Amino acid sequence: MKCCSPRYPFALVVLAAAAAFVLHSSAQEKSKAPEIRGWKQGTGWGWIWGQEDQLGALNSMTPETIAAALRLAEEGKTYDLGVRYSRNSYKWPGHSPAEVMTFRSPEGVKRQADNAFTAPEVNSSGQAWHSCALFINDNVGTQIDGLGHVTAGDDNHWYNGYKEADWGGDFGIRRCDAAGIPPIIARGVLLDIAGLKKVDALPAHYSITPADVDAALAAQRLKLQPGDVVLFRTGAMRYWGEDGADQELLKEHDSAGITLETARYLVEEFGSMLVGSDTSGLEVSPAPEGSDTFIPAHKYLIVEQGVHIGEFHYLEDLARDKVYEFCYMATTNKIAGTTAGFALRPVGVK
Amino acid sequence: MKCCSPRYPFALVVLAAAAAFVLHSSAQEKSKAPEIRGWKQGTGWGWIWGQEDQLGALNSMTPETIAAALRLAEEGKTYDLGVRYSRNSYKWPGHSPAEVMTFRSPEGVKRQADNAFTAPEVNSSGQAWHSCALFINDNVGTQIDGLGHVTAGDDNHWYNGYKEADWGGDFGIRRCDAAGIPPIIARGVLLDIAGLKKVDALPAHYSITPADVDAALAAQRLKLQPGDVVLFRTGAMRYWGEDGADQELLKEHDSAGITLETARYLVEEFGSMLVGSDTSGLEVSPAPEGSDTFIPAHKYLIVEQGVHIGEFHYLEDLARDKVYEFCYMATTNKIAGTTAGFALRPVGVK
Amino acid sequence: MKCCSPRYPFALVVLAAAAAFVLHSSAQEKSKAPEIRGWKQGTGWGWIWGQEDQLGALNSMTPETIAAALRLAEEGKTYDLGVRYSRNSYKWPGHSPAEVMTFRSPEGVKRQADNAFTAPEVNSSGQAWHSCALFINDNVGTQIDGLGHVTAGDDNHWYNGYKEADWGGDFGIRRCDAAGIPPIIARGVLLDIAGLKKVDALPAHYSITPADVDAALAAQRLKLQPGDVVLFRTGAMRYWGEDGADQELLKEHDSAGITLETARYLVEEFGSMLVGSDTSGLEVSPAPEGSDTFIPAHKYLIVEQGVHIGEFHYLEDLARDKVYEFCYMATTNKIAGTTAGFALRPVGVK
Amino acid sequence: MKCCSPRYPFALVVLAAAAAFVLHSSAQEKSKAPEIRGWKQGTGWGWIWGQEDQLGALNSMTPETIAAALRLAEEGKTYDLGVRYSRNSYKWPGHSPAEVMTFRSPEGVKRQADNAFTAPEVNSSGQAWHSCALFINDNVGTQIDGLGHVTAGDDNHWYNGYKEADWGGDFGIRRCDAAGIPPIIARGVLLDIAGLKKVDALPAHYSITPADVDAALAAQRLKLQPGDVVLFRTGAMRYWGEDGADQELLKEHDSAGITLETARYLVEEFGSMLVGSDTSGLEVSPAPEGSDTFIPAHKYLIVEQGVHIGEFHYLEDLARDKVYEFCYMATTNKIAGTTAGFALRPVGVK
Repeated sequence: MKCCSPRYPFALVVLAAAAAFVLHSSAQEKSKAPEIRGWKQGTGWGWIWGQEDQLGALNSMTPETIAAALRLAEEGKTYDLGVRYSRNSYKWPGHSPAEVMTFRSPEGVKRQADNAFTAPEVNSSGQAWHSCALFINDNVGTQIDGLGHVTAGDDNHWYNGYKEADWGGDFGIRRCDAAGIPPIIARGVLLDIAGLKKVDALPAHYSITPADVDAALAAQRLKLQPGDVVLFRTGAMRYWGEDGADQELLKEHDSAGITLETARYLVEEFGSMLVGSDTSGLEVSPAPEGSDTFIPAHKYLIVEQGVHIGEFHYLEDLARDKVYEFCYMATTNKIAGTTAGFALRPVGVK
Repeated sequence: MKCCSPRYPFALVVLAAAAAFVLHSSAQEKSKAPEIRGWKQGTGWGWIWGQEDQLGALNSMTPETIAAALRLAEEGKTYDLGVRYSRNSYKWPGHSPAEVMTFRSPEGVKRQADNAFTAPEVNSSGQAWHSCALFINDNVGTQIDGLGHVTAGDDNHWYNGYKEADWGGDFGIRRCDAAGIPPIIARGVLLDIAGLKKVDALPAHYSITPADVDAALAAQRLKLQPGDVVLFRTGAMRYWGEDGADQELLKEHDSAGITLETARYLVEEFGSMLVGSDTSGLEVSPAPEGSDTFIPAHKYLIVEQGVHIGEFHYLEDLARDKVYEFCYMATTNKIAGTTAGFALRPVGVK
Repeated sequence: MKCCSPRYPFALVVLAAAAAFVLHSSAQEKSKAPEIRGWKQGTGWGWIWGQEDQLGALNSMTPETIAAALRLAEEGKTYDLGVRYSRNSYKWPGHSPAEVMTFRSPEGVKRQADNAFTAPEVNSSGQAWHSCALFINDNVGTQIDGLGHVTAGDDNHWYNGYKEADWGGDFGIRRCDAAGIPPIIARGVLLDIAGLKKVDALPAHYSITPADVDAALAAQRLKLQPGDVVLFRTGAMRYWGEDGADQELLKEHDSAGITLETARYLVEEFGSMLVGSDTSGLEVSPAPEGSDTFIPAHKYLIVEQGVHIGEFHYLEDLARDKVYEFCYMATTNKIAGTTAGFALRPVGVK
Repeated sequence: MKCCSPRYPFALVVLAAAAAFVLHSSAQEKSKAPEIRGWKQGTGWGWIWGQEDQLGALNSMTPETIAAALRLAEEGKTYDLGVRYSRNSYKWPGHSPAEVMTFRSPEGVKRQADNAFTAPEVNSSGQAWHSCALFINDNVGTQIDGLGHVTAGDDNHWYNGYKEADWGGDFGIRRCDAAGIPPIIARGVLLDIAGLKKVDALPAHYSITPADVDAALAAQRLKLQPGDVVLFRTGAMRYWGEDGADQELLKEHDSAGITLETARYLVEEFGSMLVGSDTSGLEVSPAPEGSDTFIPAHKYLIVEQGVHIGEFHYLEDLARDKVYEFCYMATTNKIAGTTAGFALRPVGVK
């Protein structure tokens, strides 16, 4: 399959509107933005990085882009963009549940006495330890979807044409796993759609459109740049609380999100390198009637464009402080085979 | 128990030697190093942050210290300090094993047809997905030990006096879990002891002494500063390869590490905020004859001083490039109850 | 704590009623019932088997009792008393969830090629295999609660005085685990309370009383004998279906069950060796106002009397065929540390 | 694929020898053995039970055969044929490891206080409970391999032609899972090959041949009957001890077992319904040079003949007491999707 064919008609009128913006200059804009390699206006990224590539649009990061992003962080003020995940936390029901289990405990270590080095005669200080065993899914909590997470076609291929028959396996995926995702350090932009609409959180099933993108950029007096990490705030995470246990409330608001058109707008017109939000799936659900899939924005971004997706990012503090531009930093666990970074703690630094 | 009592005699001669260093000035030294709160030369950190504190020495991070650390990263060159973890990877045998299991696969999703939205009539593009279920321990791969990981005494207390009878539980620890560890952004210093000794990797059971610290600092023309993340290179990680499957070789070299005296030296004389290495346990093993525990440096650093420990950090690339001073950034997963950050990907940025 | 003290006043009037029964003789009654060791009318079983005992009332099984039970099975007609357990199945919410995950699959084995012996040149028949990894709780599906499952007192002791401080541990319990439960082969008796009441299933919170026991025995023309496995039918399992996925319906009917008095009646007057039902917890819930625990029948049966409890037994077919007396056979998995036999398949044979 | 074609030349001389036996009559032989349906001398069982069948040779069990088997148990003496399984136990390295983890503990329940019904004011007796969470493989400990465990061919089919493309899935197999295996009650026959050879345990890689079968039958003065469960004793389980922790010793002896010819001999000449042993894989390993698979007896028995395989059966006590004929009873867990009964406790009753 060839990706990125011009299947989706694009609203030229939207582009015209975008071009008409008059925006204040941000900190980064003051300095010359670094060159972004790979991206082409009008078509986006795509499968352009070679047959062996597993990174997609993240290939556009260079020391120059990273250094530029870090310069946005001169105040050293950090925002923790992760949500606390526990056995009680809201998740998409199709994923496996979680348990964090006390595996070794000081009392257990001493009662079982299964290690000679804890015997009182050689351990007079009564030292012991805690450790936990975890059963957990790799698509829960604050996430970055890897490029092998979703597949398309009868051949079940993912980004760059990797096919299940070749690269599937019993221990996770064997191409594009999350262990291979490099540290992501880039300019982060918050698009506060809930703030724009003056609501606590967008209502269920709200579709964030290209016009909403334009309006938020105008309201926030900001321009997007190629290579940005763009994060949409629906407001859903204001209901996460301690550990996301209010299933009903979270489920309701979790269904607001971007449309396929908005995904295209970001990638093809603005060169966004990673697109995310504060919901479990970024895109509006259910998909519009007539879609060729239940998650058209996932297919477009991940499979066709090689753009990673950020999910369940906690954006409340950024919004409260009106921090719309910042240095975004995220690292995924290096666990072989995983399909996403999960239960993450991305950071926004101003 | 009162921590930080002057139980351990301290080698004054070593201090004198340290004071005699004449060092070249580093990038950070050129600018005024920010004030570090909480630390006192001669005693270190300790339980000084209030009865409810769960962060220990990490409390010394401020926007100023973070901004200063970020200024070390002006080139934007990143070093991935994590090692890839899989079912085959070396770990301490007392921890639970790992499996990353393909939980949903495109073929499985289609064969089971257990979700209406994947039916061909509403999913003409044949969309499906991969996800994994993980069974994993929270003390494996590249780690940051949390302040509740190890305990001491008949009351099994950990940092700040949290006792098992009060704060233990079935779902991990209820104080000082790794979900509460803030993003760590600080000046990182590599002490390349293997390089100093001109060996590929330190031999089994090698004890890294305060004198080794001094010699490495001198050879690397560097000074330590309060608030540093100090990482010792034994060279063991050069044998990690793809995923740490060479159990015998790794086990052998994994036993080199620092002594209790070295831990004290770093904390009490230099104000190190986090101390780590490229082995599973930082400290030399077995503990010296006559120790009151099998892991005296863990007890001192974590329980008594509130200093987090870094483990299995991959330092080979930093050493190769002679990058001894850098911006260290690490974030742990936000999983409630966990005792450590595991399978991490800390980053060094120059 | 001393068990079995006469704390609970006992309804003598009930006994008198019981003594007045005139019952038809069953198959086993025709032959002389074997001597049952250990049991004493009026007090039951209790901690009488020695300080090291872990089996409780099951000690009363002998080759003679087993042979007598097997003689009830002369037709060779089997009834499967287990229910099918899956990730969707109803369970008490305090237990951990279940996943059965395809661990190795023929396609995965061939794609990964991680075993030399599956290479085509030495495996021309294309042989491969399936196996599953399970994450599961030991208190789900059709169960037999072990004698260490529940505890009482500030010392958290279980049957026979085993205390948590001595016999607890990180890998399950270290006394009375389900791996030590011998094969159970005994006379089984069905008490069809739903049938007696002429309802599909007992209503929520229905309390099965000693009078119900008497009435069912009279209606079924049956006598209890010491050493019996007594199974109460509430009818709840008629709603289990394929795998117990109708959570709401099952939860509703799951709350019917026996009272503490009924448990005492069975053990002290009739010498029941194991008491079970077709619900998750045998006893009525919630416990009567003023109880000293939320599960008084569990405390009495398991902790004080050493009587195992059977749960989620599928009794619909036995009831349909009016098979009220049969040979009951059950074996638990031999998994060290487990607190119960789970997802079992006990058998009734007529 | 058509199974059971006469691909394997059969040693007529062996048959002739078998016919020449003069054997003492056993308990069961005294009474007329029940008719066994389905089996044909010379060809065995095979795919004869209809397109929807999932049980294979177990279909031959009827109330009559079960009643006959139970008549072998008139003494009521039981032999526990299961081995205790723990995290330390020997298993085939290709399976996932096991952990039995204390999930809820009395102390944890009380410290966390996450259930209102354990509050002291409503729980004056201090009631609490233990439960365990298990991570375990379905091919460990004492096992009965289901008919979907192994597959053959490019289409990865198993017994009765079920193909992976149709009946595979993410949650285990969707045809022939172990949840569907009926209670197995049949005449059990021990063939004590280690006893015959007068060794503690057969040496590594020993091939048990049809001649060994004949010699054991002669020595034990026994005849096989259609419908038997035949168990071969290599003696390996004498090294299991508490929980099979002596990996080296067990691994060595685990490689003795039957040949493909022996499997054929049992099924085609004697009508064995289930064939098992005291090793992890029943058959000799490695497979003879030139085999078309690494497990030819598995392919023959499970895929082609629909005969379940028993593994890791503890036969030491039966051998010690020279109990060669008994009632074999085994029930597998009712866990949807599982490929085998695992950590079982089959019983031999005399």
